[in-house]
Amino acid sequence: MHLVTFTWRPDVTNDDVVAVIEGLTSLQAQIPELLSYSFGPDLGLREGNADFAVAAVLDSPESLPAYLDHPEHVRILKEFIAPLIASRQAVQIEVPADTAI
Amino acid sequence: MHLVTFTWRPDVTNDDVVAVIEGLTSLQAQIPELLSYSFGPDLGLREGNADFAVAAVLDSPESLPAYLDHPEHVRILKEFIAPLIASRQAVQIEVPADTAI
Repeated sequence: MHLVTFTWRPDVTNDDVVAVIEGLTSLQAQIPELLSYSFGPDLGLREGNADFAVAAVLDSPESLPAYLDHPEHVRILKEFIAPLIASRQAVQIEVPADTAI
Repeated sequence: MHLVTFTWRPDVTNDDVVAVIEGLTSLQAQIPELLSYSFGPDLGLREGNADFAVAAVLDSPESLPAYLDHPEHVRILKEFIAPLIASRQAVQIEVPADTAI
């Protein structure tokens, strides 16, 4: 499972975030190694949270490059996500083989 | 879905992380609102990653306090996790109603 949390720069707009969501939504169908894919803005339930998160369950750790280095993923990162980032923390963790979000 | 990424202080040991994992493992059965619960150390697949992540799928956003403020969760945080933290980013995102990791 690949997890990322982001904080955005202070000048990021709602339209910027909608473009990220649209990009990631279109990506899912293009990567068969993605068992499940959840992402979205923080719900605002707790103080001090970051702004956005992605959780991607892949069919195996070996499939990470099929997702991270997919040309469309790289394009969305570069075009829509990278310009918004103030900070980013990514982690890949092991999950049971039958895991799907 | 509640997601957290952590980086640990440089003096954190493997035993410290094992204690976190044991604490979180024992917690799961005590919180019925947790539909699924994944956590663990970064697999070391990519440079620049954070050190540890937690992904908790709850039965609804309203159940967040049942998890976050559960006395055993608060105890594990205070006793085992807080002393290790260099940085922490938490996000709660909406996921489809049938979601379970």
